[in-house]
Amino acid sequence: MAQYLAITGGVGGAKLALGLTHILSPQELTFLVNTGDDFEHLGVHVSPDIDTLMYTLSGLSNPETGWGRVNESWNFIATVRELGGDGWFNLGDRDLAIHTLRTQALSAGEPLSAITKRMFETLGVAYPVYPMSDKPVRTMVDTAQGELGFQHYFVREHCEPVVTGLRFIGAEDAAAPPSITQLLLSNELQGIIICPSNPFLSVDPILAVNGLRDALKSASAPLIAVSPIIGGTAVKGPTAKIMAELELQVSTVAVAEHYGDLLDGFIIDQTDRDLKSRCEALGVETVVAQTLMKTLDDRVNLAQTAVKFLSSLR
Amino acid sequence: MAQYLAITGGVGGAKLALGLTHILSPQELTFLVNTGDDFEHLGVHVSPDIDTLMYTLSGLSNPETGWGRVNESWNFIATVRELGGDGWFNLGDRDLAIHTLRTQALSAGEPLSAITKRMFETLGVAYPVYPMSDKPVRTMVDTAQGELGFQHYFVREHCEPVVTGLRFIGAEDAAAPPSITQLLLSNELQGIIICPSNPFLSVDPILAVNGLRDALKSASAPLIAVSPIIGGTAVKGPTAKIMAELELQVSTVAVAEHYGDLLDGFIIDQTDRDLKSRCEALGVETVVAQTLMKTLDDRVNLAQTAVKFLSSLR
Repeated sequence: MAQYLAITGGVGGAKLALGLTHILSPQELTFLVNTGDDFEHLGVHVSPDIDTLMYTLSGLSNPETGWGRVNESWNFIATVRELGGDGWFNLGDRDLAIHTLRTQALSAGEPLSAITKRMFETLGVAYPVYPMSDKPVRTMVDTAQGELGFQHYFVREHCEPVVTGLRFIGAEDAAAPPSITQLLLSNELQGIIICPSNPFLSVDPILAVNGLRDALKSASAPLIAVSPIIGGTAVKGPTAKIMAELELQVSTVAVAEHYGDLLDGFIIDQTDRDLKSRCEALGVETVVAQTLMKTLDDRVNLAQTAVKFLSSLR
Repeated sequence: MAQYLAITGGVGGAKLALGLTHILSPQELTFLVNTGDDFEHLGVHVSPDIDTLMYTLSGLSNPETGWGRVNESWNFIATVRELGGDGWFNLGDRDLAIHTLRTQALSAGEPLSAITKRMFETLGVAYPVYPMSDKPVRTMVDTAQGELGFQHYFVREHCEPVVTGLRFIGAEDAAAPPSITQLLLSNELQGIIICPSNPFLSVDPILAVNGLRDALKSASAPLIAVSPIIGGTAVKGPTAKIMAELELQVSTVAVAEHYGDLLDGFIIDQTDRDLKSRCEALGVETVVAQTLMKTLDDRVNLAQTAVKFLSSLR
């Protein structure tokens, strides 16, 4: 059966991921998710991108906040704050149950991939979802104020420090899931989609996992990326700010340059249609589409565009 | 200044403890609390008796449940159950913040006594409160179904298994807080009150702490206990059931016999006034009072009776 692999980080990527599940079955679509943002907080292991995808695909995501669970309460973290505890990272009461059970299972020696599989199944999501590695990889942000863990940079410091570099601690010792390595070698693989997540914070940690970039490049199936930059800015999050601080042009073209020889195809937003030729000048086939996903229809349409594009590249 | 020491377990003892705080200042009254019921659950360290006292003295106790925090929500544990996790021990969302911060501090090497002091202060309780020891002591219940940890017996199994014995693992290696040992040697100590907690489950673990029973006996100040048995049954909890299973007569007299030579005085309920002479036949001065504490006035009145009784025994 035809197989597709979608590579994703958190919120932006999960939107396209949801679209893809509307046109591909669990037998056709596998997800590979960033865990560079994972961290330990208040004694629990938090896997933000896995949970964002889990809540999105199970229909439990919170439409008000754009992250976390629907129908959430915040009494735990409010009390932590009242008691003078470390309250800068918002943990919802229901969300905390996920972190607690995951932490318990990790302590008992269960691999993150097995825990992830079990949790998605429990929440009724049949799609195979793999953390980028079972070994921990931690995204560290070098800033003008010194090194910060990802969540300290992203949440506690509200992305305010100027980024001077990014490192993915443990990536060299990490290994991609065997099922993913196998899928990349399979003749059934029809295409690979890098979802519109932050290339630096969400996708690069995945590409840094030992051997994974090479395995993606060697796959016979085409690989495309959807640009998270629209009209010189990011829909959400610090992508644009980080690009500027890393002295990159804040443009969809720079995203294509960043992914480089990994790309067989690139999808840019209609706002950036005049940049199509500049992307193609990099040797990357480029499709213009509506990449801003406000509605479910937008998500499904973009998924259809991506799958159609991949078939044209084979 | 005159000093009093109150020894207490959970709910029953905390009622008298609250009464005592209405007649004695934080400079006059110290609490020593059972930690034999402490356990680790879902990755957090729970200290039920310390928390019951903390919530009671800070006005945060839940009047509906009789345990836990007021204004509580239960979304965390509901989600744990939905996910198939260990949901038999109810952890409220706000309550969980206490356990989480305590666990964090314990992991960082802070002693339970220091954590307890800090938490009571944060919640505005100025009375010195000491866990019976910083080293863990665990109450194990031998039952017809095998050995059970206290909470497994008490909460998970609803006290249903027949008790054949009780053991306090770690008690021999534990040590009472130096401040308590010092207080017991002090000339300022005017009296010691064993609150009406379960003698077997809540008070015995304290008495089992290495050297503590002897130190209580050697103190020059008188020691009294308030019987938790009223009219041949317990106000709450499994005291009566356990006494029957341990082949003790379920009577306030058996409580006096159980505390034995530790007692200088004993307070029994008015319902049991015809047992006064039998208690006194054990060589223990006995006072009849209303020990059933339904209202705050009941608590304060019983506290006054206890303090007056102690002064008559000096």
